[in-house]
Formats: sequence, C-alpha cells, structure tokens
Amino acid sequence: MSENRTDLAELGEFGLIDRIKAKFPLQLESSRLGIGDDAAEISLAKDSHLVVSTDLLIEGIHFDLAYTPLAHLGYKSVVVNLSDIAAMNAIPTQILVSIAVSNRFSMEAIDTLYEGIAQACQAYRIDLVGGDTSSSRSGLIISITALGYQNPGKIVKRTGAKPGDLICVSGDLGSAYMGLQILDREKKVFEVNPDMQPEINEEQAYLIGRQLKPEARTDVIFDLADVGIVPTSMMDISDGLASELLHISKESGVGMHIFEDKLPIENLTKLASSDFGLSPITCALNGGEDYELLFTVPQSDYEAVQKLNDITIIGVVKEKSTGNILNLKSGQAVDIKAQGWIHF
Amino acid sequence: MSENRTDLAELGEFGLIDRIKAKFPLQLESSRLGIGDDAAEISLAKDSHLVVSTDLLIEGIHFDLAYTPLAHLGYKSVVVNLSDIAAMNAIPTQILVSIAVSNRFSMEAIDTLYEGIAQACQAYRIDLVGGDTSSSRSGLIISITALGYQNPGKIVKRTGAKPGDLICVSGDLGSAYMGLQILDREKKVFEVNPDMQPEINEEQAYLIGRQLKPEARTDVIFDLADVGIVPTSMMDISDGLASELLHISKESGVGMHIFEDKLPIENLTKLASSDFGLSPITCALNGGEDYELLFTVPQSDYEAVQKLNDITIIGVVKEKSTGNILNLKSGQAVDIKAQGWIHF
Repeated sequence: MSENRTDLAELGEFGLIDRIKAKFPLQLESSRLGIGDDAAEISLAKDSHLVVSTDLLIEGIHFDLAYTPLAHLGYKSVVVNLSDIAAMNAIPTQILVSIAVSNRFSMEAIDTLYEGIAQACQAYRIDLVGGDTSSSRSGLIISITALGYQNPGKIVKRTGAKPGDLICVSGDLGSAYMGLQILDREKKVFEVNPDMQPEINEEQAYLIGRQLKPEARTDVIFDLADVGIVPTSMMDISDGLASELLHISKESGVGMHIFEDKLPIENLTKLASSDFGLSPITCALNGGEDYELLFTVPQSDYEAVQKLNDITIIGVVKEKSTGNILNLKSGQAVDIKAQGWIHF
Repeated sequence: MSENRTDLAELGEFGLIDRIKAKFPLQLESSRLGIGDDAAEISLAKDSHLVVSTDLLIEGIHFDLAYTPLAHLGYKSVVVNLSDIAAMNAIPTQILVSIAVSNRFSMEAIDTLYEGIAQACQAYRIDLVGGDTSSSRSGLIISITALGYQNPGKIVKRTGAKPGDLICVSGDLGSAYMGLQILDREKKVFEVNPDMQPEINEEQAYLIGRQLKPEARTDVIFDLADVGIVPTSMMDISDGLASELLHISKESGVGMHIFEDKLPIENLTKLASSDFGLSPITCALNGGEDYELLFTVPQSDYEAVQKLNDITIIGVVKEKSTGNILNLKSGQAVDIKAQGWIHF
C-alpha cells in the first residue's frame, strides 16, 4: 500500500461513489443499470427465479484487521455471499455493497478494500450494481446483498433430503478454522515481539489461505449441471459441518449419518493435533467458515457423483427417528451436536 | 414497552431468527421462499425487470435513539428503502433486513423494532424474505435491501429530463427537517430538566411525524400509472431538493429552474422563521429526509399532472447552459447550490 493518505472527508460521499463506480464497469447483459441512480435495474433470464441473500460483516465480530489484509477482506466479503447463492444451486450475477467506515480509514484503505471486491467480481463474473456508503462511529461495517438466478425446478432448498440419499461435501473441512488458529498464534507472537518474522510453511500457508481467501463453490454448481444432478437438499458450510447437518435434519425431517473415515480432513490432520492439540474432527464439525457445499443426492446418482471433481460422499440420510450420528473409526456411534457460532 | 428484559444471548441467533420468521408470514405470490434457507427465492412478474436498492442506517449517524422510538425507527428504515424503489417508478415487493445490536438491546427492544418493520410491510403490502443478525460492538446498525419490479419501458432514471419538461414534486418539503429541529430542542430541554413535559401543538406534531414516520410515495407511482404518465426523470428527495435538482441536472445534462412561490412549504413557513430563525426555503432546499418524489414530465402532460393529488409543479427544465436557478418572489434569480449531507 502507498504511503499516501487522503481523508474520506476531503473526497466526500459523492466523490467516493464516483470513485467506486469507475472501478466497476458492468459486464453482464442482465445488469441494465448500476451505481448512480436510486436503484439498480436487473433483467432475469427467461423462466428463471431470482435468488437473493444478504450478509453483514462487522469489524471486531466477524474479522480482525490485525491479520486480515483489506483486499482479502473485500474478496472474502463477496465470496461468503456468493456461497449462499451457490447453496441454492443458483448462479450469482450481481452484488450490492454497503460500507460504513470511521475516520481511521483513508481513501487509499477503502480503495484497497474495493480492489478485493473487484477481484472477486472478476473471478466470479458478477457485477457490482449498487450499495451505500456512510461513516461509522467505530470500525468498519460491510453489508453485501448477492443476487442470482436459477430455473425454479432446479433451486435447491434445505427441505428435500430423503432417507436413502447420499450425503456429500465439496472440498475439505476444518481448514479455515485451522488457518485462524495459526493467524491467532502469529498475532500473539507479533504482539510480544514486533520484529519477529512469522515462519509459515506450505501446509500452514494453505490453511491460512482457506481462512483469509475462501472461495464460493460456484464451480460445483456448474459441475452438477454438467452431470445432470439436482441435489435434494443443499446448504453451504459456514458455521461448521455439525451445525449444517442439523439444519438439514430439522428442515427435511430426516436423520443424518456420517462416517469419520470419510471426512475430508487430511489437510489438517497432522497440524491440528501436533501444534494445537485439537481434534481434526472437531475442527471439521465445529470450525466453520469453510464455505464448502453440503448436499444430498438420491442413491441413483451415485455413479454421477463419482465423476465429480473434489466431491466426497460422507454419509447417508436415514429416518428422523434414528437421529444424527457420527460413526467413529472405532465403531462407536456418537450423536452430532452443534456448537456453531452464536454471534451474541 | 413491557418491563421484561430478555438477553439476546439467552435467545441465541437461531432463536432470534425463528422469532423474526414467525412475525413475517409471506403475503405475496412472488415471494416463493422467505427466511430460513441460504437465500430467498423470488419470481418476477412477466415482462418486468427487477429494481433493487440498499441502505445502511447507523446509530449516532443516521438516527438518535434519544428521540427515535424503536418502532418508528423500524418503520422508517423500511420506508427510506421503498422510497428508492418508488423513485424508479417501480412497485416494491420484498425487503431483506440485517441488524447488528450491542448487548445494550434486549429481545423486547428488538421485538419493538421488528414491530415497526412489520407495520411498514403491512402498509406497503411487501414481504420480509431474508436478512442477517449479528452483534455489534457499539450501537444499532440496520441494513435493508428492497426489491421491486416494473416494465422496463416504464422504469424512470435520472437521465431523461429534457428542456421544456415540467418539474414536479409530491407532498411538502422541509417538514422533516423542521421536525428534527423541534426534536433536538425538546431533547435539550429534557437534558436540562427530565421532569419537563414537552408541549407539542398540532403543527409541531405534524412536523415531528414527518421526521419520525415518513412515508414512501408509492401512491404517486400508482396515480401516475392511472393517468398514463411516465416521467422523463425521477428521484426521491432524501438529501434536500437542491441536491436532487443538481443530480438530475448533471445526469440529464439540463438546467433546472424553479420558482420560490411554487414551493410547497406552507406547513413550515410560520414556525421556521418565528421559533428557529430559519428560512423555510433553506429548509426545503437543504433540509433532507422528505422522501417525496421529484420528477419531470413533458409539457404535454400538463393537464394530466393537474389531475394528480398532492403534486405541485415547481419549475421548468431548460438548456444546460442556463444553469440551475431559483427564481425568488423578489424577481431575483439565484444559483442553486447543494449543501446536502456529507456523511463523513
């Protein structure tokens, strides 16, 4: 980042809006009107429904600027919203971004935040079409609304899982949480000795990357369409696998049975127990922020699922009365309980 | 409000979401899926485009809870967003509401806020279909996204005003600002002597109501449709008439000429100068928060405009080179300058 510091007060609200608008030329035909009017105008693909989701990210609650570079924060803020759109089996198309900042933040800092947002817009081929800017009394607040679309017959909710269905997840689990542990440790080291350079090996770099720069699995949505699978239920894993399994259990009225030896946790198995004394299974179940997709498919899709990249079958759906069960390698079966993240 | 106080921590995030969901049964056919999944699902009327807008409201910046009852705040937060949808000549249909609260707020306080939101949903026949809940480190933060629809040929931007067009406004101007002055005065009286009961007469009550409980002029959108008028440009008056006139001037490349003796300011003329030493014209031009509509129509619509309720023709559009002019009763012509509200 440059040494220059321009006060936002100097630029003014309309100056800031013009500056943001210049960074976000519209790319999609469906983005009929973007920043600069009372509202944005969007056209929807024929025979499709709108899918819309919104998230609030608050400094000191959802992120710590001590170890979150602003560009990464901008990128991640977009990604977590696109992940919600993907979780409906829908294609994200537009976002609206509101920010509130205290006078601690310079124009250059806000530029960096929006560079991360722009990078996400490029990566996911979406348009920023609106938002709001304000001052805040303390810290940085980001509110993002994401829009997407899908044929109504292909929109996937949390309610459709049926006994016999296979339980699948994309990617690996618990890595983002392990990344956070490493960042927390480095922050403490830095606080004691600011001259200390962190020593980060490749494995740790991967885990930190999962925390700071997660991706929304829109690629899985395209892959599922390619092999002709419409999941029976789906959601993204933001609060940890356990919490999400219980959501689908509740909403679909089923029991979710998973197997320890199927969980995609190899990326953190060594580090979790050796450096942090954590159980990798606990990281996967309760860690959160993976932004992977959890979904169920009929057993008849078994072969089609096998063809998919980066998808693991971790269990099977059963009757509700059987409960939600983690089958350990030892042969023991334990109830799944959500720890989740209660943000109060 | 009851004396009961339940901590939000006791209720938990999912408990709060369930509580909110119960208050907002879906009313519209277009609201296919509301709160409780990763995203909401919305269908759009045939041959229409989506119109979407978002606003961030922050305690201490946009509102002062010392004189803003929470139910009014909830109502107003929705209204300011619907006003943006109306300003596109569109019909609002759904909102998403995110809130962040510090532990100063009880469950009962949040209930009251959502009662105001629910009242607005009823009044405007819209559905709350999603949102986010979080804690904040200080104060209350509200982020609302509003959705609406309109036939693309009838969506009105800021760019279409043409020389010869008539400049119109709905309702009256400056009242919300005068209401704020009265509330500010009462707050100061209260701070000096908490036993002092405010003496509010009918005129003052009207002005305070305009500040605390503004309405979005969706009625004007229906009225315009009834008489077959599609304005050439439109926006809502949130920052003050002067600022908005300059926006349309800039976006449409025209000069905006208005007349002092046409301005709908009779509601505040007496009080502004007698009690506060303010010029009513200044209140109207720079006051803000009126949430009335400013729009331009071709001269050929003159007779149709006359048939409309609560609409005043305040001026005429001219060539850009003529500037933006306020013609005073004295015969003097002065340049219109925006003071506006710079929220930094």
